[in-house]
Amino acid sequence: MPVNRQILLDNRPHGEASADNFKLVSTHTPALQDGQVLVRHHFLSLDPYMRGRMSDTKNYAQPQPLGETMIGGTVGEVLESRHPKFAIGDKVVGMGGWQEYSVADANTPGDLRKVDTAHVPLSAYLGAVGMPGVTAWYGLVKILEPQASQTMLVSAATGAVGSAFAALSKARGCRTVGIAGGPDKCKYAVDELGFDACIDYKIHQDAYSLSKAIDAECSNGVDGYFENVGGMILDAVMPRMNAFGRIAVCGMIAGYNGAPMPMTYPVLILRQRLKLQGFIVSEHMKVWPDALKELGTLFASGHLRPRETIAQGLESAPEAFIGLLKGKNLGKQLVKLVSP
Amino acid sequence: MPVNRQILLDNRPHGEASADNFKLVSTHTPALQDGQVLVRHHFLSLDPYMRGRMSDTKNYAQPQPLGETMIGGTVGEVLESRHPKFAIGDKVVGMGGWQEYSVADANTPGDLRKVDTAHVPLSAYLGAVGMPGVTAWYGLVKILEPQASQTMLVSAATGAVGSAFAALSKARGCRTVGIAGGPDKCKYAVDELGFDACIDYKIHQDAYSLSKAIDAECSNGVDGYFENVGGMILDAVMPRMNAFGRIAVCGMIAGYNGAPMPMTYPVLILRQRLKLQGFIVSEHMKVWPDALKELGTLFASGHLRPRETIAQGLESAPEAFIGLLKGKNLGKQLVKLVSP
Repeated sequence: MPVNRQILLDNRPHGEASADNFKLVSTHTPALQDGQVLVRHHFLSLDPYMRGRMSDTKNYAQPQPLGETMIGGTVGEVLESRHPKFAIGDKVVGMGGWQEYSVADANTPGDLRKVDTAHVPLSAYLGAVGMPGVTAWYGLVKILEPQASQTMLVSAATGAVGSAFAALSKARGCRTVGIAGGPDKCKYAVDELGFDACIDYKIHQDAYSLSKAIDAECSNGVDGYFENVGGMILDAVMPRMNAFGRIAVCGMIAGYNGAPMPMTYPVLILRQRLKLQGFIVSEHMKVWPDALKELGTLFASGHLRPRETIAQGLESAPEAFIGLLKGKNLGKQLVKLVSP
Repeated sequence: MPVNRQILLDNRPHGEASADNFKLVSTHTPALQDGQVLVRHHFLSLDPYMRGRMSDTKNYAQPQPLGETMIGGTVGEVLESRHPKFAIGDKVVGMGGWQEYSVADANTPGDLRKVDTAHVPLSAYLGAVGMPGVTAWYGLVKILEPQASQTMLVSAATGAVGSAFAALSKARGCRTVGIAGGPDKCKYAVDELGFDACIDYKIHQDAYSLSKAIDAECSNGVDGYFENVGGMILDAVMPRMNAFGRIAVCGMIAGYNGAPMPMTYPVLILRQRLKLQGFIVSEHMKVWPDALKELGTLFASGHLRPRETIAQGLESAPEAFIGLLKGKNLGKQLVKLVSP
């Protein structure tokens, strides 16, 4: 029974999340019951949705309970197994949480999934070939319904979701434009992720100015918009939407700290006959096999190779998470839980 | 060639529309060309969408040109025909505009449609069994996708669209709740239109108070909302939407005078995985036959018999229209263009 370091949610943030909201503790992993598997985590995924769970406002998911290990996606290897389908050494992806080890009930569908690391490295199953990739796939394919030569736009373009969005949208023959913060991210979006153009929102003081910049890069208007941010960015995009445009609402990171974040011109929904649809990918498990197949193929062929920002050691997770919320990472934010 | 009185758009409103925006003129109807039909209008329909056309802001439709006859739906009878499919005395519905006579090109599909007045009176083809009825049908059936025992909510509940919505929603086994202004309208909604309940928004000072009243009448939450108004009413409804709720955006009359009308909590689109979709019914002509068939049956069986508010004479149209925008009418607002 190895010593297991864990990070708990100690108290809820008022406004911005801070390192003080978390608490690092050490325990021993419990003895395995029949059907259970002990996993040693190699990587923990940090994702914006976690900020929503830290609050106790009404949400699509239950709030993260205080005093319990923060939820989170993990990849690792099986150390011990009392389930016939998992053997010692198997590489697995699951929702192990912010800790170094976890005990998974392997009979619960979806809790633990064996993965092949011959063509795709383990960490990619937390990003491009994992939940963020499937998120991009669902929003693009099922909500934005892209047609070749239409224009698809995504905010938080260089994040894990945006990176996958670019590859999937380009594969469908769409003009694919991103919105990101800062010249380095925009250069990375175009040079490495395959975006046709990327707009730096940080050089714009208001929605009107940003909207003109979007107009310049989307001269045929925007047919599909994948929303990760909200606020000023949504206000800037909406006047650029073509008639019958679609907006997939995946995240509103701008509002996660509780500040009100109105939509200034909802009348555009009517004028342009827009469809806006919110979704969370875990409610659409049926699409995962198709999505993962396409994402794996794009990864293996080199069309989807986003960078990773890797923090070392569980103790670095809170600061890395806060940095993610502020956009400090480039590409998928991970925490490495085994020695370098 | 009879003398034809017409009302033109003389100038565009700044803020609220007023009678000064219109101008009454007299002309003679032009001589008929082959394929044309001369129609004497019995009724002119007044509808909220006309306010949108009076402005020259970007919209789904071209602005109403200055100095031309205001557009509008009309019913009447054929006085003279140079088209084989129309005979003198035929009753017809068309887009004749704010005038006493019109010349229609009967070869243009959709311009002129013969109607049967044996079971449905002529005026109903401008309301329950016309464009407003089909509008309710499209929003309900194609966007809100009601399931029996779900809760459907509509604003401007006693208007032409809301009246049809009630009958169509009840026919599908839904709890059907309206929002309207004033106790008389709310009583009419329940007593005559078949709503299960109707909420008087005028007794609420803010969205929070109205939202609590909606909660009281929709104790299982709201599954589908048909939006005719926007503003405070939309803000009050959104927190009451169930997960996977649908909002059909048909009108935002609250914003037609140009005042900004933000949506306060767009983050609810994500939290509740809502779908919002704007539409205009004239872009969905394929559904009209099915919709009109159901609406005609509901009318003939007495399940859809909204009242009409009838202004007398073309000269009364501007004031009646302004009254409509302020909610002064009860049921479908018409102008009678033939002597009483």
